[in-house]
Amino acid sequence: MPKISKKGQLMPQSPIRKLVPYAEKAYKAGKTVYHLNIGQPDIKTPQVALDAVKVHSLDILAYTRSEGSEIYRQKIANYYEKNDIHVNHDDIIVTTGGSEALLFAFGSIMDVDDEIIIPEPFYANYNGFSTASGVKVVPVISKIENNFALPPIEEFEKLITANTKAILICNPGNPTGYLYSKEEIKKLADIVKKHDLFLIADEVYREFAYDGATHYSILQEKGLEDYAIVIDSVSKRYSMCGARIGCLVSKNKEVIQTALKFAQARLSPPTLAQIASEAALQTPQSYFDEVIEEYVERRNTLISELNKIEGVQVANPKGAFYCIAQLPIKNSDAFAQWLLEEFDVDGETVMVAPAAGFYSTPGVGLNQIRIAYVLNNESLIKAVNIIKQALKVYKD
Amino acid sequence: MPKISKKGQLMPQSPIRKLVPYAEKAYKAGKTVYHLNIGQPDIKTPQVALDAVKVHSLDILAYTRSEGSEIYRQKIANYYEKNDIHVNHDDIIVTTGGSEALLFAFGSIMDVDDEIIIPEPFYANYNGFSTASGVKVVPVISKIENNFALPPIEEFEKLITANTKAILICNPGNPTGYLYSKEEIKKLADIVKKHDLFLIADEVYREFAYDGATHYSILQEKGLEDYAIVIDSVSKRYSMCGARIGCLVSKNKEVIQTALKFAQARLSPPTLAQIASEAALQTPQSYFDEVIEEYVERRNTLISELNKIEGVQVANPKGAFYCIAQLPIKNSDAFAQWLLEEFDVDGETVMVAPAAGFYSTPGVGLNQIRIAYVLNNESLIKAVNIIKQALKVYKD
Repeated sequence: MPKISKKGQLMPQSPIRKLVPYAEKAYKAGKTVYHLNIGQPDIKTPQVALDAVKVHSLDILAYTRSEGSEIYRQKIANYYEKNDIHVNHDDIIVTTGGSEALLFAFGSIMDVDDEIIIPEPFYANYNGFSTASGVKVVPVISKIENNFALPPIEEFEKLITANTKAILICNPGNPTGYLYSKEEIKKLADIVKKHDLFLIADEVYREFAYDGATHYSILQEKGLEDYAIVIDSVSKRYSMCGARIGCLVSKNKEVIQTALKFAQARLSPPTLAQIASEAALQTPQSYFDEVIEEYVERRNTLISELNKIEGVQVANPKGAFYCIAQLPIKNSDAFAQWLLEEFDVDGETVMVAPAAGFYSTPGVGLNQIRIAYVLNNESLIKAVNIIKQALKVYKD
Repeated sequence: MPKISKKGQLMPQSPIRKLVPYAEKAYKAGKTVYHLNIGQPDIKTPQVALDAVKVHSLDILAYTRSEGSEIYRQKIANYYEKNDIHVNHDDIIVTTGGSEALLFAFGSIMDVDDEIIIPEPFYANYNGFSTASGVKVVPVISKIENNFALPPIEEFEKLITANTKAILICNPGNPTGYLYSKEEIKKLADIVKKHDLFLIADEVYREFAYDGATHYSILQEKGLEDYAIVIDSVSKRYSMCGARIGCLVSKNKEVIQTALKFAQARLSPPTLAQIASEAALQTPQSYFDEVIEEYVERRNTLISELNKIEGVQVANPKGAFYCIAQLPIKNSDAFAQWLLEEFDVDGETVMVAPAAGFYSTPGVGLNQIRIAYVLNNESLIKAVNIIKQALKVYKD
């Protein structure tokens, strides 16, 4: 029997996937499971986007251009303009989700054994794309005590080698909820320019900035044009994760021309989803205002409820819809499994994401979990209460 | 300014893309261009597929499972069953087009510097996926004189090294139109078993088999279960290239489990397109009968018209909707460009795909072009006449 690849063996499994069989066991046992583990919001997709595909007049569902239709890219450029980000449609390549934008970015700037520095905890699939690309992730630890702010820039400096090609941030952060300040972005700009590195920013949660804070994009930073690559997506912005439409944005022409060759090899991003995504750009501001209000309320509920639990430490998220909570336990993998297999409050339990999978450094984050506040307030209160009751009886 | 990757520099451009600026020049000059260069059929998508997305009842356009929804995979398994291919839904991973299935297959079985043997001429994007994966394509030449039949198996034997991991075929073939016989598949089965290699078959043109010939899938070959990986897609079958839905099929559990990890990293195939693709499975047989009849008529027209031209040699395609024609010229790249830039018959010209891009061996296929018969009969006759007139006056 022929062997699978080393790369295939090394491909990580998502930290949540391991729990799926236990969740299925919980369902079979008749338990209600509150899903705090996923990034699939319960927020409705804007009607304008859902309706657009209902009235399509296609008689052939044909390829679009590999880089996305010109009109859609022009509209995306307009969207950025409204966000004070000045790019042209030809700085944009439409991709099959932010995932593919990451894959194109990695492929365009890194070869096997190159290194990319990422503040951890980070979005677990960065590990997957790095492994698929043969690239080494070099983590720099950000701390719950500092709300997961940017680590001191000297910590980055220490990690830069001849093989370092890029720094990758997620802003606002999944799983941290941290929103980088303008000053922090400027520090990153300085270091990438000094060492001739790319700065990749995954800005898919751009709209989700709370408490009056404004998101500062790396594309707004003057002098960073040749270094900045933005990963974007409609998935979270319009609660349309299943569209699989994202984009890669850079003012660096060589990056765009190279990414385009990867895009051409896979022919075209999905056509129906581009129709929905183009229409989604007409979503009224009131939609976002309501969504942000809803998330802020949920976050406030979640954080205040978590803070009531003895021994729980929680970072206060300024953006996105995740938070990391540190629990008075030794191993959150075992705890998460136990919650599904052994525990319930009146037939209800919760599924959380163990945080170790968001760290690349072994042994870090073992007592942390990621909570996605993608449920309504009432459910969140019940879910946190279940965690509270669980911690009273749980033994590591 | 930071540098792009070596891999990115090596990524090939599609052989057609280079001609696009010249096509645009032709449009500007007011010429009508017959596009014989593309694999985007003019055949209508089945209404049942187009309608399915019009009546969707989604209020959240959510992720599906990374491997595709279970019900859709079950229906795909039923489709295979009807084609005398016995697979289970868990032998199937739904992908974003056949392109992603190729990417997952390459990632799952090959590491950097591994080798894959492919009969040439082959689908040009195999080069792109190989480069993206750091894999070396080892071509084995198939010949127009033999209608591009399978090269003698000894030619494969000669090329197998310790780094060879797989043989890849496209059946029926793009760009050759060749349909492998059962005997040829059995020869390939023997050699991969003997040398412990994977056999990947790109079977996206399965339905397009002409003259009463039956497609024989590598999944039908007994004893090949651990070796066979099929790449499939709805793009050509239902003329829905823009859906971007395909699948990877294998009875080898290790391959499926590994490919699933790649699938999980990118979260989900497109949801709307899965709705359309699931509905497309209800397409009545009459649709295919009509489409096949149409293609056979076109092929007959094309081949007979081409055969009328002095000095033109053409392989008679038994499947798919392409043929390779050898012209009495030295360089088809220059000829294709000249057709767009300099030539017209009453304001009309043609765009063809120079065949060199479908070969990996340098200098081979320079006098060949690929013609896609994706136009109606009348247009095909006009287009071939333009080639005929062009060859009368063209000087290399």
